[in-house]
Amino acid sequence: MNLRLDIAYDGGPFRGFARQPNVRTIQGEIESSIAKLVGFEPRTVVAGRTDAGVHALGQVMSVFDVPDDVDLRKVRDALNAMLAPSITIRNVTEAHPDFHARFSARSRTYVYGILNRDVPDPFLAPTTWFHPEPLDVAAMAEAAGHLVGPHDFSSFGRLPEASDPGNPPSAERVLYELGVSEEGGVVRIKARANAFIQQMVRSLVGTLAQVGEGRKDPSEMASILAAKDRAAAGPVAPPQGLCLVSVEYDEGWSYPITASDQGFPS
Amino acid sequence: MNLRLDIAYDGGPFRGFARQPNVRTIQGEIESSIAKLVGFEPRTVVAGRTDAGVHALGQVMSVFDVPDDVDLRKVRDALNAMLAPSITIRNVTEAHPDFHARFSARSRTYVYGILNRDVPDPFLAPTTWFHPEPLDVAAMAEAAGHLVGPHDFSSFGRLPEASDPGNPPSAERVLYELGVSEEGGVVRIKARANAFIQQMVRSLVGTLAQVGEGRKDPSEMASILAAKDRAAAGPVAPPQGLCLVSVEYDEGWSYPITASDQGFPS
Repeated sequence: MNLRLDIAYDGGPFRGFARQPNVRTIQGEIESSIAKLVGFEPRTVVAGRTDAGVHALGQVMSVFDVPDDVDLRKVRDALNAMLAPSITIRNVTEAHPDFHARFSARSRTYVYGILNRDVPDPFLAPTTWFHPEPLDVAAMAEAAGHLVGPHDFSSFGRLPEASDPGNPPSAERVLYELGVSEEGGVVRIKARANAFIQQMVRSLVGTLAQVGEGRKDPSEMASILAAKDRAAAGPVAPPQGLCLVSVEYDEGWSYPITASDQGFPS
Repeated sequence: MNLRLDIAYDGGPFRGFARQPNVRTIQGEIESSIAKLVGFEPRTVVAGRTDAGVHALGQVMSVFDVPDDVDLRKVRDALNAMLAPSITIRNVTEAHPDFHARFSARSRTYVYGILNRDVPDPFLAPTTWFHPEPLDVAAMAEAAGHLVGPHDFSSFGRLPEASDPGNPPSAERVLYELGVSEEGGVVRIKARANAFIQQMVRSLVGTLAQVGEGRKDPSEMASILAAKDRAAAGPVAPPQGLCLVSVEYDEGWSYPITASDQGFPS
């Protein structure tokens, strides 16, 4: 059967999600632990390949073709016992045979935190960008409004190399939501899109921060998008402020259909 | 003049508060930073010398005999810029000439967090004890009630070596408050006392956890105290769950008397 893993991690100790030889990555740690449990390296797919230092509360991973007789709760507890405290398997469920963590996803939601006050905080340092210069949150929210929608986001990130010269990669994405709020000195930027190009959320945040500092005007967002030039937007905000909070699927996929999941006696 | 520093730190990366040669300690880092700023090693005193791995939100340090012309806000910002993100100077104020961070303190308040649910959390791992076995919080609260008061706490910690044979160290302390509460799967134990012997809060927590597991009865607390024997109580809970949240002083000491502090134009 196929599994769906819901995963949280503190990205600080890792060189990103995607497996790489000779470095510590989140995918590498999870796959090694699953291999110890089932006796072979499983095929896996993930909803969002987060960059080095980026966190997740709601990462989703497909694990294909595991033995049908595994006890899901024991798998969860055994993985958590093997993994470092910085990675937690929140839930293990049987996935529909056609569920694919990446291709079945309708959208991804990220939240970026900026600690915007004059004194830092040792307990927020691992998950926020400390930015003591005051930010104009209303101007940032106005600028964010100009970025929502279907756009070519070439100015806000990197595209993968073209693997097929006749079919170049596209930076067209649909940004459904880009919200800016402030509470207790923490400015939060929430971004939801069908998908993101690499470094897109952090480039949006770096640009909105420049608006908050008064160095860019909200009205400039349209021309930055139109430029399709990375140099037109602001810098990439540091990774530790970013967290993949959830991945959205159609109802039928989210939790698989087994007797006990439907509330029937198992 | 003398300074009062209000300090927060994530104790994880450090070998405790107290300065030691060749290892990274919180006192060592702060004193080195102050020395870079004022040009000499200052004399300092701290309210509570926390053990390795223990955190603080409200540690208080006296820094004696710094030049009278220092700008307190600049000192704070310069220290924060020099220190690692795991240590923050929250406030720098001029202290009354007789203020002494340790001897002027009336009481210390610690909070200990236990993550008591079946799934861990990477973001709570650095500041809680993950304890998946269910805890009976009501029984723990009942046991805690038996421990409040003036007692000889020899069963709950370590005493320093006697430096004066005619005047042996005493484990007599006044525990003003020992509260147990639970919210969102986190059990919090709040302990306030005039002072604590070494490992006292973590020994109280380790004993209360045994009560929560049903391995000790709340009624046993009196005999554990009476035993004055470390072996009578439970084990020492791990350090990362513990935080020195505040140090209480008499009103007159808390914030020193300067024109601007009183709201007068400076």
